Amino acid sequence: MIWFTVCLIFLQCLLETSAYQGGFNGKTNFVVLLMDDMGWGDLGVYGEPNRETPNMDQMAAEGLLLPDFYSANPLCSPSRASLLSGRLPIRNGFYTTNLPGRNAYTPQNIMGGIPDSEILFPELLKEHGYRSKIIGKWHLGQQPQYLPHNHGFDEFFGAPNCHFGPYNNKKTPNIPVYKDAKMAGRYYEGDFKIDHVTGESNLTQRFIKEGIQFIEAQTQKNEPFFLYWAADATHGPMYASKPFLGKSARGLYGDAVMELDYGVGQILSTLKRLGIAGNTLVFFSSDNGAATYAKLGGGSNGPFLCGKETTFEGGMREPTIAWWPGKIPPGKVSRQVGSLMDFYTTFLDVAGIPAPKDRVLDGISLRKTLLNNTLVDRPIFYYRGDLLMAVRVGNYKAHLWTWANSWEEFRKGTDFCPGQRLKNMTVHHQEDHSKQPLLFNLAKDYGEKYQIKPNSEEYKSVIPKINAAVKEHLEHLKKGEPQLNYCDRAVMNWAPPGCKEIGQCLPVPPSDKTLCYWPH
Amino acid sequence: MIWFTVCLIFLQCLLETSAYQGGFNGKTNFVVLLMDDMGWGDLGVYGEPNRETPNMDQMAAEGLLLPDFYSANPLCSPSRASLLSGRLPIRNGFYTTNLPGRNAYTPQNIMGGIPDSEILFPELLKEHGYRSKIIGKWHLGQQPQYLPHNHGFDEFFGAPNCHFGPYNNKKTPNIPVYKDAKMAGRYYEGDFKIDHVTGESNLTQRFIKEGIQFIEAQTQKNEPFFLYWAADATHGPMYASKPFLGKSARGLYGDAVMELDYGVGQILSTLKRLGIAGNTLVFFSSDNGAATYAKLGGGSNGPFLCGKETTFEGGMREPTIAWWPGKIPPGKVSRQVGSLMDFYTTFLDVAGIPAPKDRVLDGISLRKTLLNNTLVDRPIFYYRGDLLMAVRVGNYKAHLWTWANSWEEFRKGTDFCPGQRLKNMTVHHQEDHSKQPLLFNLAKDYGEKYQIKPNSEEYKSVIPKINAAVKEHLEHLKKGEPQLNYCDRAVMNWAPPGCKEIGQCLPVPPSDKTLCYWPH
Repeated sequence: MIWFTVCLIFLQCLLETSAYQGGFNGKTNFVVLLMDDMGWGDLGVYGEPNRETPNMDQMAAEGLLLPDFYSANPLCSPSRASLLSGRLPIRNGFYTTNLPGRNAYTPQNIMGGIPDSEILFPELLKEHGYRSKIIGKWHLGQQPQYLPHNHGFDEFFGAPNCHFGPYNNKKTPNIPVYKDAKMAGRYYEGDFKIDHVTGESNLTQRFIKEGIQFIEAQTQKNEPFFLYWAADATHGPMYASKPFLGKSARGLYGDAVMELDYGVGQILSTLKRLGIAGNTLVFFSSDNGAATYAKLGGGSNGPFLCGKETTFEGGMREPTIAWWPGKIPPGKVSRQVGSLMDFYTTFLDVAGIPAPKDRVLDGISLRKTLLNNTLVDRPIFYYRGDLLMAVRVGNYKAHLWTWANSWEEFRKGTDFCPGQRLKNMTVHHQEDHSKQPLLFNLAKDYGEKYQIKPNSEEYKSVIPKINAAVKEHLEHLKKGEPQLNYCDRAVMNWAPPGCKEIGQCLPVPPSDKTLCYWPH
Repeated sequence: MIWFTVCLIFLQCLLETSAYQGGFNGKTNFVVLLMDDMGWGDLGVYGEPNRETPNMDQMAAEGLLLPDFYSANPLCSPSRASLLSGRLPIRNGFYTTNLPGRNAYTPQNIMGGIPDSEILFPELLKEHGYRSKIIGKWHLGQQPQYLPHNHGFDEFFGAPNCHFGPYNNKKTPNIPVYKDAKMAGRYYEGDFKIDHVTGESNLTQRFIKEGIQFIEAQTQKNEPFFLYWAADATHGPMYASKPFLGKSARGLYGDAVMELDYGVGQILSTLKRLGIAGNTLVFFSSDNGAATYAKLGGGSNGPFLCGKETTFEGGMREPTIAWWPGKIPPGKVSRQVGSLMDFYTTFLDVAGIPAPKDRVLDGISLRKTLLNNTLVDRPIFYYRGDLLMAVRVGNYKAHLWTWANSWEEFRKGTDFCPGQRLKNMTVHHQEDHSKQPLLFNLAKDYGEKYQIKPNSEEYKSVIPKINAAVKEHLEHLKKGEPQLNYCDRAVMNWAPPGCKEIGQCLPVPPSDKTLCYWPH
């Protein structure tokens, strides 16, 4: 028996060593499959009643489910900037001070973007022999200095901004689609068509193909890689390719989910087919909660409160799965409280690359969580713009501020919490609870419905821990220069790099720099 | 390759034949694992974020998940009477006419019970050589003529009513626990203790043991069986045994769920251990939605609206799994719209026993759904007492009436829809929409949040189908004699059969027959 165990350990050691040394110069590859506005409740494995995601569900069956995983922000650009920088928006500058507690992002007239001072993890991977590719939505600034190839990425197929539209290229240009450092066309035009009546588009298929080709090429070259697959079909205006249109019982949003699910299956099966699955750590997640304001056009946040744009659980709890066959035991669930910012620190840890020491990183390494289901205690800070709205410590969440949206917006029909009404919570003016936070136990009360009474023993024992976490956080907080304050028509995608070669330059209008208006 | 396929088919044929003929006189055994007040959202596989049900989730991985499955009523007794009779409460008499649209059940002062005229499926199974046992909650009437052994069951270990308490045996007697036709003691006393401070009780362990012993005994005798395992630990007052107390992150309710999950695992592994799993069709489900009025003390209905007592999805959508290794393909999901009443018709179909022809049965056979994932079109009727509140046809649900509860009850703090407010839906007076039903597409809108506009083409095309289903239903509706109108202290469990032998008879008070009061 002892010999058998020894043999097993030896064998396991051999296997692990071979996985590390059998290719890619002993390095582990990384893949992030980041969905856009997909909710926690949109995956079958997370309880979506129609269960239209067999590949994502299979990924969970083969990997680790992480139900307590958060984005760093309830909105796209700040969430993505934090994923790549490992730091909260308040540090990396992806916030606004135009008004307190306002969500801001990077529409194409934004003047800011990811500062050079931020070290994105692809930059560090590159120094250690990795090649990185982003496919889909960048969202960290559309001016040339902010584009992916200036921030650690070697390849790019996708767009700098959301694919809003359709535009007529007059008042605003259509969003460009880049092939690496140069534009290859524009959304809604030519190769990158989205039919805004039917929702038909082949773009997700293009993104799948680009992903597979990159993986194949890197495998061929035996060069370690990071693939950031940031497809955007579930962000309005939704789209799907012909075979998926009408496939879902949920409508166009569901069609888009089903095509992305197919894409996830294609990418994972490529890793298996090439024999590199055991050497590739893959994370699946989403950038923020489902867009509940889109009503039936948006996704589902399952049992959680409200959605995108809010710091309730529906706004920031993300459907996360980690997958690394042979390393991560299959079919398990971890209660680790995680963050998209942990991808940064986890990848560096797995790759044996030292993390920057000159700055605060908000991510933690999940390496041990993934391999042994070790649990690491860590707080989650829920920011909205420049305002620290809520804090999670252990299973407890304290709201220092609550706000859904303004009465003005709500009366216009923008409802972030449709069908949900909770006193002091889903409110339409910014409520300050910082003197006496609203406290909830998320393990029992994931819907954030039942406040723990301030005069209870439970409240009295938990609040000091919350206060300590906030104090510690604020003491070490060096705010970044806010990047999302100024807008200017002149910085729009009129004449992106490469426009001349394809005859798609548009005349740049004069500058009209103003403070951006952020209504939410 | 062809030979290989032929061999496989031959082997499968052999296996199937052997499963049918290898024991139990060629008959299939049946097990129903019926939970009490457990919500659709309480199982990990149905999206419960804490994922504390590994055995139920494993059952789904080995079996068929049925996310569109309903109880026949949003309350316990009528739901259970319908499960066993295959007929809606309005037919089998499990309703009240004291007030329109009121939920009624079988507290121990109820005078009614399951009428002799109803044919419960264990009666039919018995005629064909089966032996049936109920473990846990009966709830079809506590007077001797209504007890399980007078309605097809050979064995009984459990109670006729809910384990409400604690009582002091003065104003009301404690609920008896029966061992077959005679009482063996009372809840909260002696062997059947529930500590109403800590929630500690060994009862679920007793129920597990009774279940396993019955399966073992039947296997030994080679006699086909039906086991109705109706454990009640998740019904208030909740309880769990010492090893499970404090185990769940969700509190006592979660502890109870985790112990029941353990029980499900024990029963399924017993079937495997005895080699009879392939010959036993098992259904897991619950009797009604989670008790949202219990606030943090109750379960979760996931993304659905409201809970127990209501005809919204949260009141009647049940977490259902079918399991029959070797027959039901593993790990699949079926969109079949099902009902607990289908157990009746499915079991008879599988056992080759003709269904009664002298009455309307509301169940359909799911045999083909289970074996081949065939979908059968069928309506669902959502009753509350004597009132047809809503109808589902295909993916569409039409509310003819809406009501949460009365203003009086709501103002007293009874909220069936905590945190949820929807115009015309979560209302506190009975709203009549029968002239223009509120229509929802449940596939897209499982939260019942977005009414389909009455002037839309969709509405105009769907409503005729709803009307046709209602017309057809009402044309063939012969209402049963209402059983839940009268209450009487004298019929309480003062002196149940067997009380003398164990010295637990209590003096029976004089009759005070009155109309029961049903507030909801």
